Order: sequence, then C-alpha cells, then structure tokens
Amino acid sequence: MKTVVVRNIHRTDAALVKRLGALGASTVHEAYGRIGLMKPYLRPAWAGGEAAGSAVTVLTHPGDNWMIHVAVEQCRPGDILVVGCTADNTDGMFGDLLATSLKARGVVGLVIDAGCRDVKSLREMGFPVWSKAISAKGTVKATLGAVNVPVVCAGVNVYPGDAVIADDDGVVVIGRKDAGDVAAKAEKRHADEEGKRRKLAAGALGLDMYNMREALASAGLVYVDGPEPD
Amino acid sequence: MKTVVVRNIHRTDAALVKRLGALGASTVHEAYGRIGLMKPYLRPAWAGGEAAGSAVTVLTHPGDNWMIHVAVEQCRPGDILVVGCTADNTDGMFGDLLATSLKARGVVGLVIDAGCRDVKSLREMGFPVWSKAISAKGTVKATLGAVNVPVVCAGVNVYPGDAVIADDDGVVVIGRKDAGDVAAKAEKRHADEEGKRRKLAAGALGLDMYNMREALASAGLVYVDGPEPD
Amino acid sequence: MKTVVVRNIHRTDAALVKRLGALGASTVHEAYGRIGLMKPYLRPAWAGGEAAGSAVTVLTHPGDNWMIHVAVEQCRPGDILVVGCTADNTDGMFGDLLATSLKARGVVGLVIDAGCRDVKSLREMGFPVWSKAISAKGTVKATLGAVNVPVVCAGVNVYPGDAVIADDDGVVVIGRKDAGDVAAKAEKRHADEEGKRRKLAAGALGLDMYNMREALASAGLVYVDGPEPD
Amino acid sequence: MKTVVVRNIHRTDAALVKRLGALGASTVHEAYGRIGLMKPYLRPAWAGGEAAGSAVTVLTHPGDNWMIHVAVEQCRPGDILVVGCTADNTDGMFGDLLATSLKARGVVGLVIDAGCRDVKSLREMGFPVWSKAISAKGTVKATLGAVNVPVVCAGVNVYPGDAVIADDDGVVVIGRKDAGDVAAKAEKRHADEEGKRRKLAAGALGLDMYNMREALASAGLVYVDGPEPD
Amino acid sequence: MKTVVVRNIHRTDAALVKRLGALGASTVHEAYGRIGLMKPYLRPAWAGGEAAGSAVTVLTHPGDNWMIHVAVEQCRPGDILVVGCTADNTDGMFGDLLATSLKARGVVGLVIDAGCRDVKSLREMGFPVWSKAISAKGTVKATLGAVNVPVVCAGVNVYPGDAVIADDDGVVVIGRKDAGDVAAKAEKRHADEEGKRRKLAAGALGLDMYNMREALASAGLVYVDGPEPD
Amino acid sequence: MKTVVVRNIHRTDAALVKRLGALGASTVHEAYGRIGLMKPYLRPAWAGGEAAGSAVTVLTHPGDNWMIHVAVEQCRPGDILVVGCTADNTDGMFGDLLATSLKARGVVGLVIDAGCRDVKSLREMGFPVWSKAISAKGTVKATLGAVNVPVVCAGVNVYPGDAVIADDDGVVVIGRKDAGDVAAKAEKRHADEEGKRRKLAAGALGLDMYNMREALASAGLVYVDGPEPD
Repeated sequence: MKTVVVRNIHRTDAALVKRLGALGASTVHEAYGRIGLMKPYLRPAWAGGEAAGSAVTVLTHPGDNWMIHVAVEQCRPGDILVVGCTADNTDGMFGDLLATSLKARGVVGLVIDAGCRDVKSLREMGFPVWSKAISAKGTVKATLGAVNVPVVCAGVNVYPGDAVIADDDGVVVIGRKDAGDVAAKAEKRHADEEGKRRKLAAGALGLDMYNMREALASAGLVYVDGPEPD
Repeated sequence: MKTVVVRNIHRTDAALVKRLGALGASTVHEAYGRIGLMKPYLRPAWAGGEAAGSAVTVLTHPGDNWMIHVAVEQCRPGDILVVGCTADNTDGMFGDLLATSLKARGVVGLVIDAGCRDVKSLREMGFPVWSKAISAKGTVKATLGAVNVPVVCAGVNVYPGDAVIADDDGVVVIGRKDAGDVAAKAEKRHADEEGKRRKLAAGALGLDMYNMREALASAGLVYVDGPEPD
Repeated sequence: MKTVVVRNIHRTDAALVKRLGALGASTVHEAYGRIGLMKPYLRPAWAGGEAAGSAVTVLTHPGDNWMIHVAVEQCRPGDILVVGCTADNTDGMFGDLLATSLKARGVVGLVIDAGCRDVKSLREMGFPVWSKAISAKGTVKATLGAVNVPVVCAGVNVYPGDAVIADDDGVVVIGRKDAGDVAAKAEKRHADEEGKRRKLAAGALGLDMYNMREALASAGLVYVDGPEPD
Repeated sequence: MKTVVVRNIHRTDAALVKRLGALGASTVHEAYGRIGLMKPYLRPAWAGGEAAGSAVTVLTHPGDNWMIHVAVEQCRPGDILVVGCTADNTDGMFGDLLATSLKARGVVGLVIDAGCRDVKSLREMGFPVWSKAISAKGTVKATLGAVNVPVVCAGVNVYPGDAVIADDDGVVVIGRKDAGDVAAKAEKRHADEEGKRRKLAAGALGLDMYNMREALASAGLVYVDGPEPD
Repeated sequence: MKTVVVRNIHRTDAALVKRLGALGASTVHEAYGRIGLMKPYLRPAWAGGEAAGSAVTVLTHPGDNWMIHVAVEQCRPGDILVVGCTADNTDGMFGDLLATSLKARGVVGLVIDAGCRDVKSLREMGFPVWSKAISAKGTVKATLGAVNVPVVCAGVNVYPGDAVIADDDGVVVIGRKDAGDVAAKAEKRHADEEGKRRKLAAGALGLDMYNMREALASAGLVYVDGPEPD
Repeated sequence: MKTVVVRNIHRTDAALVKRLGALGASTVHEAYGRIGLMKPYLRPAWAGGEAAGSAVTVLTHPGDNWMIHVAVEQCRPGDILVVGCTADNTDGMFGDLLATSLKARGVVGLVIDAGCRDVKSLREMGFPVWSKAISAKGTVKATLGAVNVPVVCAGVNVYPGDAVIADDDGVVVIGRKDAGDVAAKAEKRHADEEGKRRKLAAGALGLDMYNMREALASAGLVYVDGPEPD
C-alpha cells in the first residue's frame, strides 16, 4: 500500500453539494440509477443528523486511527470525512476530540466503516456521524494508511472529492463529475414526487397513477374472491 | 407460486383489535402462550410508534416491490400491511409515497421483512413501520408475487385477516379466531400485573409473591455466605 | 455448575463508583488500559440512559429468567444487575415488573447478555437497561443458575462487586480493587482532554498537539500534490 | 399455543418424494416458482448429505428439546423431521442418540432451526442433518410445544406431510398437494437442462441460447471498446 | 491492563486431560452441568480435528498478534493455546509458521477468538485450530497484551491451566480443579449412553426409556387424531 | 449507472498471474502491504479449490443474474469472473449451467458477493467458486448492470484486468500494474519463510528469530513467576 497523503484534491462544487443535500439520500440514490449507496449497516450515531459534503478519504487498519489525525489537516470547510478500513473492525476510532477538531475546520460530518464513541457529546455538538458500531474501544497509532486515495467504505468505492449525501436513510456517494447531472435529475424527481404525493393523499392508487394494471395482467396476475363469510 | 390477489378476506373484528392494541405486544404474546412473535431483528423505523390492525398480506421477491403497489388497493381502514419476501433482502421497498397512499386508505402501519426508507418523512407523518433494515436502495417492479395469501414474515406465518399488534417491543400476530380468547386472557393478565406492580414497588419480592422459594430449594439451590471482609 | 447464591459480597466503594460514573464509559475504558469493555452489540434499550453501580451477577440459561428473580433479593442500593447466559439468547428475560422491583431496592440499572422488553415502560420509569436485543419473548422458570459468581457477559468476565459504568458508548467493567486507581487516572485524562478540546476548537491540529509529524515521517508517510485542476 | 400431538397425518406419496429427491433442491425450487426455500443459514452438518422425505413437524422452545423426543414416536419410514423454534436459538437440541432412534424408525433426516451436536457420529452414521448451528450446548425438557402442527422453520411454513428436499444447496419444502405437479415440471426442467448443458459445454453462449440479445438492447445495454493498449 | 507474562502456571493433570479428550466436547459439557462451552461461532479450520490440552492463555488486541509470539515460549508438550482479544476481530492472527513453532514444542492445538490463515497447511500439518474466521489479513506487532492471565475467549473465561476439549462440536473449558470430577461423571455418562444407544437402535422409544409419558401428560400434552384420509 | 459492457480490456500478464497463484492468497496479501483482501465472509463453495486469474467484472442488482450471462461472452481463457451487487443479496445467482459455459471458455473460477448453487456439481466439475452464501434461490433477468467496469466485491474495488488470487484463505486482488512488483516481493517472502519454517520446526523461538525481546521489554512487558505448586 502506498502510505501517502494526497493534498489539493479536486472537490465537488459546493453549490452542487448543497442542492444534492437538500434532496436527501434516497432521492439522490434513485436519480443516480440506484448505485452509490453504502451498506445499510452504517447507521447515524444520533437520529436526525444530516450532512452533505465533498469527500476527504482515509484508509485505516483495524484498531488504528492514526490516519484520521493525519487527515484532519487536509480538510476544508464543506468537506465530509470518509474512513475505510482494511478489515472488519468495530473499535471506536472517532470521538469528540476529533469531532471538535473537524468542526473547527468546517467539516460537516464523518462516515466511518468502523466504530465511533462519545455519542452523547457528538449529539450535543451537532456533529453527525454514520458508523458501523458504537464502541468505547480505544485505538492505537501504529500503522500507516493513506489519505485522499480511493477507499472502499461500506461497499462503495469513494474517490477524494466525491459528493457524499447522508441522512437517516443512509449514505450515498456521487462521482464528482456526475454531481451536476444527478442533481438535475434528482430535482426533477423530487418535483414529480410532490405531485404524486398529493394525488395519493387524495386517494389515487399507484396502480392507476403508474399504469400498472396492464403489465400486471400480462405478467399473469389473477384476482380471486376470498372465502365466504364465516 | 400462485400469482394471485385474494379480495374480500375475513378480518379480525375491529373492537378486538383495539383491545389487543391497548395491551401491547408483550402482554398479548404472553397471553397467546408465547407464540406468534416475529423475530427481534424487526425494529420500528422510528421509536415510539404503535399499531394494531388486521393483516393484509403481501409476498414479494428480493429487490421488487411491485406487489406492495398491488396490495394498496385491497386495504381498508384499520388494516396493517404485512410484507414477506421469498429470500433475505434489505432493500428499501417502502417509502413515503406508499405510506401516503396507505394512510389515505386508513391503513394503520406496515410490517416488512425487508428494508424501508424515507424514515424522516414516515416519522413526521406518524406512519409506523417495523422493518429489518433502513435502506435507501430502490427496487424494481418486475416479478409477480401474491396478495392475501399466507406469508411468512420474520419467522411467523401470517394469514390474511390475522390481528397484528406492534410496538417498541416487537410485532405479535394473533390468529383471527383466537383474538377474542387472547384479548380476554391478556386483559386479565394486565389487570393482575397492576397489582403485582404495586406490591413490587412497595418492596415485595417476586420470590415470595410467586412462591418460588420451595421450588428453588427442591431444585437444589444453595445459599452461601460471601467472603470475609477484606 | 454450582447452583448457588452468594450473599454478602464485597462491593466497590460507592464514592469510587460515583467518580467513575461521572467520567463515562469511554474515558474509564481508556484509563483502564483499554480492557473491560463489553461487546458493542449490547445497546441501551432507550437512548441517553446512564448508570454506574457495583455488580450483582447472575448466570442464566437460554429462555429462563428464574435466577433474575432470585438475584433481586441480593441487591442493595447502588447495585447494578449483570446477567450472563450459558448460550446465545435474545429472549425478553427482563421487563417492567422486574424493573419495578429492582428500582424499589435502589438498583441503578441492568446489563443483560440477552433480550429485554417493556421498553416504553422502562423509558418512562427512567430505569436504564443495556441488552443484546429487544424482544417480547417470554421466558420460563425451570433451570437453576447462580447469583454472585463470576459470569461472562458480552465478552467480559464480571466478578460480583466490580464497578460497572454504562452509557450510550457501552458498558465497561472495572475490577473492584482497581477502581480507585482507574478513577484517579480517568480524572487526570478527563482534565487533560478539556485543555486539548479547547486547543482543537481554536484550530490546533492533533498532528502538532500530539507531536505526530516526526513519527509519521519516520514510518514512511509521504505527502504528494493532487492532480492538476481540471 | 395448543400443546398437542397430531397422529395419523397425511403424507406426501413416497414415489413422488423419491422423484423430487432425485432432482435436488435447486431444480425443485425453480419448478415450484421459486418459493418454499428455507433461509440459507441452514447448512448441512456434514457435506454431501442428501434427504427427501415427508415432513413430521415439531414446535419447540429455545433450549428445550422435549418435543423432539415426543415426535419420534410419530415417525414412519420415509419421514423427515422438521423442527421449528419459537425464538432464535443455537443450542444443540439434537445429537446421535436421537439420530439412532430416528434411524431405527426409518426417518431419512432432520431439519432444525436451531443447533445440533455429535457431528462426527452423525457423519459416521450417515444420518443427514441441516441446522442453523453446531453446538454442544445441552437442552432441558421443561416446556411443551407441539407435533404435527404447521411450523415455521428457517423462514418457511411447513405443514405436516409436506415434501422436504434437502441437499448441499439447501432445503426446499413442497406442499403435499403440489408435489405431483412440481415433480413433473422439475423433471421437464431437468431434461431441458441436460440439453443446455451439452450446448454450453460445446461453446454456445447463453446470450444466444436464451435469445437475450434483443431484450438487452431494448433495455438499453451498450457495448463499448476498452482502452487502448498500454 | 497488566502487560505481563506469567510463567510456571499450574496445568491440568495430563492423564485427566487425556480422559476428557477421549469423551469429546459434548459429553464433557453435559457432565460439567452445561457450562464452559465457547460460543458456536468458533469453528474448526479443518473438519475432523480434535484436541485436548491444558490452556496457555493469551490476551491480544485487534489486528495484533505480538503476544502469540510471546506465548510460544511458555508452552510445553500437551498445552493448547487459547487466545482472547479485547475487541471483535477477524484478522488472520495465526498461520503455519506459528503452528510449526507450536508443534515443535508439543502444543496440541489453538483456540482463537479471531481469525486464522494458511488453512491448507494447517490441515496438511494436522495442527487443529478453532477460530472465529478464516482470513488472510496480516497483523502488526505493536501493542502489549498478556500471557497466562485469565482471558475471555468466545464467551468463556479461561484460566491458565484449565482443561480445554475441542472437536467438531465445539470447544469446552473445564476448570483445572474440576477436571477429575468431570472426567468421572462424563465417563459414567458415556457408559450409560452406550446402553441407551443399543436400546434405541433396537427400536425403543426415548419416551419410554426416559419415563417421559407421565410428565408430559401432567404438563398438559394432548394427543389428537389427524384429519380423515383425503 | 452506465449500463455498459466494456470489451477488450487490459488483462494482467498470464505469467504473472501464474506466479502469484503459486504463492497463495495469504503470502500475496502480505507482499501487497496487507491490502486488497476481500472480506472473510466470502468462502469457497467447496474446500480445497484454488484459482488465479485476470478479472472480468460484473455489476448486478439483488436477485438478478442477467449481467452474468452477458459477461460470459467477454471472458477468455485465464479469466476469473468477479461479481459485485448493488445491495446485500444471498440469492443463488450462479450454478452449474453458467459454470459449464465459463469452463468451456477457459475461465478459472468465480468470485461473487452473493450466493451460488449446484454446489455438488461445481465440486464434481472442479470449478471453484467463492461466494457469500449457498442458496438454491433462483434469480430473474430484469435489470441491466454492467460488465468490465470497476465493481466493489466483498469490500474491495476491483478493476477489469486486475489479478485475483483465491484459495481456502480467501480472495486477494492485485492491481494489474502492481502484479509484477507484488509477485517479486511475494516470492522473496515465500523463500524467506521456508528458512524460518525450518528453524521453527527445529525449536527456534520467533522471539529470538525476529529479535522481539528488546522491543517487548522497552514496551513494558514484565515476566513474573506463577503461583506456588498447589
């Protein structure tokens, strides 16, 4: 492994990140063709947190958070830190001191394929974290990893500068160069959904609204009456 | 598999459902002889939600929510939708558009042996969902399943019209024809518990209240003194 | 197995327990040399609960909570009940009646390597529980276990009278005779962290504050510039 | 729960069971419309075991194998024992003594949604078992369940007398009255596969053999050339 | 944590270990009152391996196998190495070089609450290993742990010198001072089982052999006839 | 997602693949700096299988194996098929018909982050598969994915043409351009290990061979004598 820190990465345009964040993970994920979603075992450390940022990536080893300390220096306002690990690990690699430091630099959140701790403080600070586990287990600073190289985090390969949208529904990663296209598609989808929501609330059926009845019949769906009253 | 939709099912009497719902999943489960409980991996999408309804059942395939759309039309006020899947799946088969549609029809909640999404909206709408995962992953509409046939959901075989009681403790299913008997037993149990609760709060021991001492002694339980003070 | 109840155990000094509890699980765990942490699959039944107490230990069999009833009698104010099980089990061995009884005796919380139920009531009572699962599944009273013998709970061997510190970050167990030393170290650590937190909030880098740069360089870390602007 | 033993159940015709067993779990599952498959966490206790039989069903509680002893008496030659449990459990409910007893009665195998033990003996006896875990953990005989009622086992609702086909690919359950139809379809499928297998072995492409190219193109699949040689 | 290596531990008498090993994990576990069994997620790295030895214990940190190297020196012929870890970890802490070294010292096997690798070589060497995972992931040598202190491994607290019996059914730990008593009880149990096995093979029912019928009836078990022939 | 098939990819040099394969997954993984290892939940469908090839990559959706059929056409002798999935899935996407087709084209194995089936046939054919599950569950052909784009499989981002080394220890991926360097380092490591193995077999201690004693002492390791004989 190249034990390297890459400086001066390209970031997703901040205005695009903002537009994507306003739409939320599920809508963005759909607009991106249903790819880019991290595994659902990643959960928010506290409910209701939301974050959208440009990724600074970190590659760590199990039980070792040295490279997170290294990564802090590379962060700028609007970034989100994305931490992958070379093997399964639930140790509490991240806590309130690192969050304080990231917040001071304008970082909007953390996504980590391992554990975090100091959950109460993180919630009070309003610093959102998505992690695989909550664990008080402390870590060492013994082995080098890398910063701002592509890392796999919870099943998604993240490039430095990718747009990351995270909320209660999960974490979605959009390629930096795809962000504009996806934002436009997602906004259209969002607008369409508003109309659908009103119709459904008024009692319309999706079966009719989406014109499903013919396809269902030709696929062989049969309607039968239930049993006689008993 | 019969790709069928059964209409006009028998439902559990609404008054019985209401009585069962007032008692909660744990009490009802005990009164039913400790059966009918779905696996504890099903969790509420938002804490504090409660629902009691008569089951409309749906059988789906992994990554495919077509039949949920079909099922909506079969729902009536007081129903609860119960979705099984032919294989393990965590995709977000259900979100706020479907919830809007179900709510418009008077459906009281959803139980799904797969994933859901739009958690924030569901909480704001007050539409309770119990699911295996929260996942933004979208699904296709490609393969038929069935509506209102018996389905296994989280380890329990659910018949259309069964009573389903769900809260923070989990999801319990009561056979339609057993509902009256179970409601009566559960109410008696609930009444008994009130008295026990008062006694225990006043300092009584369960050992005495339940007359356990003799059985424990005859089973061989021995009391010994601990070590000397150090 | 000796089916025994040990009375009159030695407890951790209440003042030490209080000091440890004020510091929280993560800080105490670090001060103890990163041991004593239960597995992170133990989660609080309701968010925000905190407890620090002297352990009364219980050994149970799967699906059987008889010995918890036996243990209640051995509890004193300031105790925390720690329940191990001879095999994996998620059944709801503990609910609001037992919580009422424990609260009446001054017990501050429960840690159980199995399931609990009546979550809503526990939250309303303010009785904190850390468990492996939430499950309405009721249990029998058929097989003897033991009270106040050493038990393994979620990966940690707990002796009767050990100090147990539990919060949103997890559950840490401190040997009774180590409690004074650990409290002193943890308080020093806590005081140090306050200063660090202020510096980091003001923009200092951990890289400098912890003097990491030299060690990183000698381990071979290389900084490179990112790609040209595109 | 009705603590009941049902005698004299209807069984699937032995000749049909034999035909289904000769085809194997995967082929039968496909012919049945891709339903009836138990969850893949059920694994053979020893590789290579195969069984096909008519189900005698057992409902147990966690850590309690009393009802398996009761069920033995209800078994006849050609039966396969299917054991469900009211909650998750990995205890070793079944071992070589019970296997000896079942074998003496002509039972062809065991499927259990819990643990088994004595794996070495089972392999030496040639008695095939599909289980959720292998565990030496012994169980009690304290709580009644039922025999020959419908039970959910590893996600499938099994009726007494259903056909159960189990091999290295898993366990499939066929409704007793569907067995003839499924056997016919599965045999046709098997015959078709032989022809396909020969063509594919000779170099034919599934793309052509299944006429997929047009559907792929109309769905939007695009072929592009890879990068220039480097 | 005390970073200590304890030399000259007491070991379980070799003759007792041999007697226990001859009986196997399941029988020994039963004779010990159904305690001492490690969690069933520990599995043999290769099927059919068996080991019985006196425990040399190791406490490691995730991703760090330094202390295993330290422990080798403390091993004597007839020992079995038992490795616990302060947090969940699946890394391959143990491979064929360490196995070669242990074998040279007469060690009979390894039990590790983490991962192992070089499975093919281990099988060819005939060196049995029980582990939580098989993983090629290499580990560092950065953090001290301990040797020959009590360690929790897969849910069991193991003292140096305890008897460890491992086979396809799992891993059981017997307290050093209990080994004689347990060996005697287990041998009696084994002898009794031989007689039972013969009777069962001859067609006797456990219901009769264990005199269960009366207890079942008084517990409320009811026998009913099945449906009419169809 | 781009629903694209990339033809004419660059492959890892066949001679390099052969050299890497001869060394095995664990040695190659170490030589690569302990990266590139897929998660240990991937297991061989049959023990003892080994494969080394150049990756043809496939991206699928849960429960849908359409793109595997598409990928076959792109395979050449010496390739290994690597299948990722956009969400967690255990369905049996791959069986003996596809294996027959791949074998006919000279493909050396399959790695799939989902399920496979027809295990018995795969073993008899000698076609090695590493999968997340074994499941008879059939799949549909409804949704496009991609072939020969980068895919994440079991936690590793795989580029078309990367070298993939798989055996009982797991699956390691080496970047195409790194293969030569890694092969050289791994061969050196392998040669060194032979010498170490001989020394260890002769009774040398790793503590001495690796010069660990000084580092251990300076880290604070203390040796103490055990208890007096009892």
